[in-house]
Amino acid sequence: MGKRKYTIGLDFGTESGRAVLVDVSNGKELATAIYRYSHGVIDEALPVQGKPVRLQPDWGLQDPEDYIRTLKRTVPAVLQQTGVEPADVVGVGIDFTACTMLPTLSEGTPLCTLPEHRRNPHAWVKLWKHHAAQPEADKINATARRLGEPWLDRYGGKISSEWFFSKTLQILEEAPEIYAAAERLIEAADWIVWQLTGVETRNSCTAGYKAMWSKREGFPRQSYFAALDPRLERVIDEKMSRRIAPIGARAGMLTEQAAKWTGLRPGTAVAIANVDAHVSVPAATVTEPGRMVAIMGTSICHMVLGQQERLVPGICGYVEDGIIPGYFGFEAGQSGVGDIFAWLVDNAVPPEYHAAARKRRVDLHKLLELEAAKLKPGESGLLALDWWNGNRSVLVDVDLAGLLIGATLATKAPEIYRALIEATAFGTRVIVEAFEQNGVPVNEIVTCGGLPEKNELLMQIYADVTGRELKVTASVQTPALGSAMFAAVAAGQAAGGYDTIFEAAHQMARLKRSSFRPNPALQPVYDRLFAEYLTLHDYFGRGANDVMKRLKHIKAEVRHPQPHAAG
Amino acid sequence: MGKRKYTIGLDFGTESGRAVLVDVSNGKELATAIYRYSHGVIDEALPVQGKPVRLQPDWGLQDPEDYIRTLKRTVPAVLQQTGVEPADVVGVGIDFTACTMLPTLSEGTPLCTLPEHRRNPHAWVKLWKHHAAQPEADKINATARRLGEPWLDRYGGKISSEWFFSKTLQILEEAPEIYAAAERLIEAADWIVWQLTGVETRNSCTAGYKAMWSKREGFPRQSYFAALDPRLERVIDEKMSRRIAPIGARAGMLTEQAAKWTGLRPGTAVAIANVDAHVSVPAATVTEPGRMVAIMGTSICHMVLGQQERLVPGICGYVEDGIIPGYFGFEAGQSGVGDIFAWLVDNAVPPEYHAAARKRRVDLHKLLELEAAKLKPGESGLLALDWWNGNRSVLVDVDLAGLLIGATLATKAPEIYRALIEATAFGTRVIVEAFEQNGVPVNEIVTCGGLPEKNELLMQIYADVTGRELKVTASVQTPALGSAMFAAVAAGQAAGGYDTIFEAAHQMARLKRSSFRPNPALQPVYDRLFAEYLTLHDYFGRGANDVMKRLKHIKAEVRHPQPHAAG
Repeated sequence: MGKRKYTIGLDFGTESGRAVLVDVSNGKELATAIYRYSHGVIDEALPVQGKPVRLQPDWGLQDPEDYIRTLKRTVPAVLQQTGVEPADVVGVGIDFTACTMLPTLSEGTPLCTLPEHRRNPHAWVKLWKHHAAQPEADKINATARRLGEPWLDRYGGKISSEWFFSKTLQILEEAPEIYAAAERLIEAADWIVWQLTGVETRNSCTAGYKAMWSKREGFPRQSYFAALDPRLERVIDEKMSRRIAPIGARAGMLTEQAAKWTGLRPGTAVAIANVDAHVSVPAATVTEPGRMVAIMGTSICHMVLGQQERLVPGICGYVEDGIIPGYFGFEAGQSGVGDIFAWLVDNAVPPEYHAAARKRRVDLHKLLELEAAKLKPGESGLLALDWWNGNRSVLVDVDLAGLLIGATLATKAPEIYRALIEATAFGTRVIVEAFEQNGVPVNEIVTCGGLPEKNELLMQIYADVTGRELKVTASVQTPALGSAMFAAVAAGQAAGGYDTIFEAAHQMARLKRSSFRPNPALQPVYDRLFAEYLTLHDYFGRGANDVMKRLKHIKAEVRHPQPHAAG
Repeated sequence: MGKRKYTIGLDFGTESGRAVLVDVSNGKELATAIYRYSHGVIDEALPVQGKPVRLQPDWGLQDPEDYIRTLKRTVPAVLQQTGVEPADVVGVGIDFTACTMLPTLSEGTPLCTLPEHRRNPHAWVKLWKHHAAQPEADKINATARRLGEPWLDRYGGKISSEWFFSKTLQILEEAPEIYAAAERLIEAADWIVWQLTGVETRNSCTAGYKAMWSKREGFPRQSYFAALDPRLERVIDEKMSRRIAPIGARAGMLTEQAAKWTGLRPGTAVAIANVDAHVSVPAATVTEPGRMVAIMGTSICHMVLGQQERLVPGICGYVEDGIIPGYFGFEAGQSGVGDIFAWLVDNAVPPEYHAAARKRRVDLHKLLELEAAKLKPGESGLLALDWWNGNRSVLVDVDLAGLLIGATLATKAPEIYRALIEATAFGTRVIVEAFEQNGVPVNEIVTCGGLPEKNELLMQIYADVTGRELKVTASVQTPALGSAMFAAVAAGQAAGGYDTIFEAAHQMARLKRSSFRPNPALQPVYDRLFAEYLTLHDYFGRGANDVMKRLKHIKAEVRHPQPHAAG
């Protein structure tokens, strides 16, 4: 029996990065350290000296040096907390938000660290939730439709403003000097692996889900990029790479420099980068078709594996080898879930409930959950469309908005709270049914993220509404655990890890023993409410009445009136 | 120049009654006294000794002795406050809520004052908002449709559960012994005039608006009543009267008894009873077609005069001589207005606004009004259907419910507050347009009630949305002033009053000098929002999607599950 071996999963989030040190033999998380980014999300002004550089609305940037600081602060901390010998850490894996991308020089130096570019916002990291590239996304979609680009269907017919080429095109159009100076354009996920290994690699997950790449067809053809903008024609070969590494591969070995930052040994195996959502799938024990993983927090990301290529209208995308090697990884999403409940709690709950929560020493979410749990399905007479933050799947429309119907003079906050939970559950059911109707079975749902830990009522409602059992991952750091699993695969069995992610998942990933099973007695009333939801969903979401878009249009006009065109 | 003469208007409301002493020469209100009914609205248990008599949900009763106590407390008070000589009070007029009705003996004794009936809820006064007679209203409507009763069209095709025969039929069905003992069934308005004069009269306003009577056709035929219930066949002749007195006539003279109660002189003229809403019309200076009176409070009552009989689909009713002699009085209504804003304030405004209101020493309505006034129309992106309390006109459907559309994660309480105000303004516009499209012109709107005094933003929005000038009555006691005007007409010119309500209105009714004029610059955006409102109004209100009714049906099923029928 050999000595115990360990891996470290590094999870780079929106506000902070964390390291989790994991026992390779059983997946136990022995220590966690968190570094809160010193500049967090940069959405008002650049963190630069001198005259302030203010950002436009919808911008969201980060400082790449925060990622390096994460390495320096968190990895030594978990080693110290556990007393684990660096020699026994056999691998490092990382996952990141995506698409979070930056321009660099050819050897990896971020342009924003160079004095000549430091005051240009386009030189910084564009975070996933940088939402200022919508015009560019519109152009990408219109051009693709016009040219009949075949890859558009893989993304449900629409590329998001959050994705790689929307952001790239925005740099080109608004800051051509930055575009010209950028010798590389790269996902932050791959950039941090580059910093760890000294080797530039590109992972198949972000390439596939965010940059229109596929294993069989590669990137879109040059003539498409040329049609977008002649300067973009050779963007792949000039500033990116056609060598895409599959998830589960090894990117390289820790450099002397990175060893100094982290306290690990030079030569430690480093896994190909991954995305926080996708790396959670094997950490949720899912390495086969038929089981959906739902990462439930402010929004929900749904992932499911399939053996065949399937076009599922309105899903975010599917990528071969994008989640688990050998499978097509399908991804869908709900753009507002926990966010909507938080909206209610912050904006529409009267003082008496705040006071009651204080008195009972629970937070207001918990109080509303307890009160809402006393209601039977259908008892409030309320129904909502969960589009407070638009609809990501299956309508793919950011201009949809929230709707509440059935209010009376007797309507109370816990009833609205429950109606919003039910609406998000109906949203999940729409996605599950879209998958199933298009040949991607979903027999059960494995959940992770913040909501399953916090809200039992929500979990039971989701089980009842979808008619499926909901399981919950045992880890509360699911993405970091997933990265630690991929780190074990990067190390390989010979070094004390595993040769495949399947073995790693079998040994390291666990679910809680308790689960949420659908209550058949409630199915009929939920089916009736879901039928009403679906009618409204299609009426407002599929063109019969575009009132939500027109209201947003009026709102935009009123807020930013256009002067009359001259002449 | 003769000595100044005075009249007293008595206004019997839902929670209290009031007397206003008015100078006949100029309408000045010299004193007001209010009596808060000792039993208020009786909706939980009868105010009787011994074992409690609990009421069913939706019941609403009153104690007729509270009306007598109003006479005794308020009239002497206004005399005392002003020092006016009883001999100079030339008339008394009264207005009442309606339909508020009670069973009595032949000489007027209310059955609920008799020991043998005192513990029977059906012996008491059924207040206008007694809502437990919906099954009876349904039967009245179904029977009328089946027999093709011509009068049904005068009421927009539907009789309300609040009206006279719904309440009468409920007595008959649920307490046949009370129905049998009731020698008279009478509006409380007429009953209080009976108490003042010793003469039983029946006014054309309640007969027309609440009891299916018309000047030309009388009451529905006996065979209709017999079809409802054989015992009801001769209800008019047995328990009511076919002699209906026109508004503006004199009912009689004050009895010795009533003179003792009030401190007025026996023989003082007493006007035929009237309804609080309708009596406000001349008090708002309106005695001619083309000017709508809107009484704006928890709900809105709209009244407009016409020269010809017109069928306006979905209005509450029209009555010849029902408001002003010689005209058809058309009535419509919105069942939730101030109530909806109060719902928001009580149920969906977070603590920070409560705190800000306290800090600024304004009530929360005012704070929200001030914040909402900073928004431009359309700026919130929100739109609502103002059906929190159903829809009275033009859809006439209590099962419709509230809708809010366009919510985002950035939506704030003042935006919702404004959207609700706008929704009620759109509701008014629907009614105004229904009148105009059916030949009843509405050129301007004269308002009274609580809202015009309290909410300037609301008034301006109503002007902008309807495209009509909104004027405001000078009196804050509009119904009582109207009653005092009818009192002056009952007295007649010879006694120091007036011979017609037209002269009385000319001399005694006044409007404020300031008014709310529509802002033409805002018309286009409100027109666009109204078009969206109308689409949703028709979609949810006219059968394309009856989701609101189905949700209420599910709610009722879930709350009161029916046991499976045996065999």
